[in-house]
Amino acid sequence: MNTREKLLTLLKKAEGTWVSGDDLARKVALTRSAVWKHVCRLREQGCAIESSPRKGYLLTQRPDRLVADEIREALETRNFGKREVVCLERTESTNTSARSLALRGAPEGTLVVAETQTQGRGRKGRSWYSPMRDGVYVSIVLRPRLLLNQAGRIPILASLALAETFIGLGISDVSIKWPNDVLLRGRKVAGILTEVGAEMDSVDYMIIGVGINVNTPKFPRSLQGSATSLFMESGSRFFRSMILAQYLTRLEKDYSLYRKGVTGSVLARWKDLAGVMGRRVSVEAAGRNSQGVVEDLDEDGALIVRSRGGGRVRVCSGDIRFLDVHDRGRSGKGGG
Amino acid sequence: MNTREKLLTLLKKAEGTWVSGDDLARKVALTRSAVWKHVCRLREQGCAIESSPRKGYLLTQRPDRLVADEIREALETRNFGKREVVCLERTESTNTSARSLALRGAPEGTLVVAETQTQGRGRKGRSWYSPMRDGVYVSIVLRPRLLLNQAGRIPILASLALAETFIGLGISDVSIKWPNDVLLRGRKVAGILTEVGAEMDSVDYMIIGVGINVNTPKFPRSLQGSATSLFMESGSRFFRSMILAQYLTRLEKDYSLYRKGVTGSVLARWKDLAGVMGRRVSVEAAGRNSQGVVEDLDEDGALIVRSRGGGRVRVCSGDIRFLDVHDRGRSGKGGG
Repeated sequence: MNTREKLLTLLKKAEGTWVSGDDLARKVALTRSAVWKHVCRLREQGCAIESSPRKGYLLTQRPDRLVADEIREALETRNFGKREVVCLERTESTNTSARSLALRGAPEGTLVVAETQTQGRGRKGRSWYSPMRDGVYVSIVLRPRLLLNQAGRIPILASLALAETFIGLGISDVSIKWPNDVLLRGRKVAGILTEVGAEMDSVDYMIIGVGINVNTPKFPRSLQGSATSLFMESGSRFFRSMILAQYLTRLEKDYSLYRKGVTGSVLARWKDLAGVMGRRVSVEAAGRNSQGVVEDLDEDGALIVRSRGGGRVRVCSGDIRFLDVHDRGRSGKGGG
Repeated sequence: MNTREKLLTLLKKAEGTWVSGDDLARKVALTRSAVWKHVCRLREQGCAIESSPRKGYLLTQRPDRLVADEIREALETRNFGKREVVCLERTESTNTSARSLALRGAPEGTLVVAETQTQGRGRKGRSWYSPMRDGVYVSIVLRPRLLLNQAGRIPILASLALAETFIGLGISDVSIKWPNDVLLRGRKVAGILTEVGAEMDSVDYMIIGVGINVNTPKFPRSLQGSATSLFMESGSRFFRSMILAQYLTRLEKDYSLYRKGVTGSVLARWKDLAGVMGRRVSVEAAGRNSQGVVEDLDEDGALIVRSRGGGRVRVCSGDIRFLDVHDRGRSGKGGG
């Protein structure tokens, strides 16, 4: 948890009573003026915090709305979300909305955010549970200069940025499940749906859609074994605009590196967080099943699986199931 | 030239006068009743041919319009063009129109045909010269069950179907230039623009757009060295609906085989027609240049190039330039 999150937690704990600036400063080990700066920042992000020279600070309202101005202000990006930000109360699917924009020429960095999705989509025609105001449902338009067969690189960046965002919030036991789910203690907390529009020679646009289960208090029975939320794992409610901002900031940073050809650090960090490296898996792809030990992830996002016979298979897409017993990374099938 | 084309040529040569059924039958070495059947077929395809028991046949009008009923009638397909056929007098680009339909759920086999394109597109942002009523400008919606990295298979089918259509018309010196141009005596007579909409796991739709220079009498100066038309090469004007029908029939046949996993014959025929096999080429792809001898085409449509050092490079996309001197298959850069 960073300082600003800590301050917010302290104010929240006071449950509508005033907290003195001295108290806050002591507890976060900062000066009173530094506390003041953080409070200003929290206000920018949508918190109603009263201040009084004598009484200190009072959290009167902690709205958690995803509106364009708040998102833009919370962002520390250069491009992502700095131009077109479309915030919708409800939409069929943020990916579908973002695709329409992309086809009409929307520039890289265009965002579509919704408070709920009526037909939230996951991979392979699965649905994504999108309860009103509980999660972050966002899609971003990218226009990478990639060949079509290099498109698999992008979901790698997206899952890494998500996982590192959660780690940055102080959440433990975060792992990535190839190709692009993020798990907390083996349960799915976020998923990614990447769509591509391309000619054979070059990618025209990519849409990275992300669903993050943030403050979801409970899942429908069918998802209870496989899905979780940041709230359920940590006991804290989170500002969704802050999470969105952190995710986009991380994503943009790695995306810029990747465009410059700096892939080593991204892949290394991804592998560190991936629950799959070195594990024995069964891969279901294009109707074929293969088994083996995961040996590597290549820079195009394909999993390199060594079969028992010693041969290597390059798996570009599909679902994996773990065959070995392991304390982390349950199969996490189904989804939030 | 097949029998029907021969009959049409004979009627055309008569320049508005009657030709006896006996004459026609002798010249095409068929019975009078077989001639009659062909005439009925030509009528179905839009030719106005009068018939009289005493005088024989008279070609009064030879319209060459691409209208839905005529196209549907000319087709010998099971699916392609049998459902939705959209015929437009002019459109920005048939691919763009077909994509809109695909995104709204148009089924496999949906066709978009236009008499002219105002912004006809070629590969890599190039334009496609689309003079009114001179060419076939058509896009078909496919929904193959492919992984994204298998999408390269489809243009192989499309270029093969085009080349074999021209050969079937009796045209000589047809070759395929990888990835997907069709050349006559080294000049581009047809080109293919394939677009994909996909998730990382599976192709949602593919649009195969084709431009065929059929009756184009002359090209603008900038294209004169590189483009040609069926008319310019053969001296004959062709029915565009017939060419379209033959192309779609061939394409559908090979596509069905391919879906069943029968790839050998398609690849073998492609390689036979490809001007690139065994030739020394320079490949420009993703800003990198590599040189070598073309050794093979793999089933995903990638060219296998062996470099001088002996290493093999798999080229999925790009432009090739021939480095050796060869009587067939000039570079054919630019295009109609």
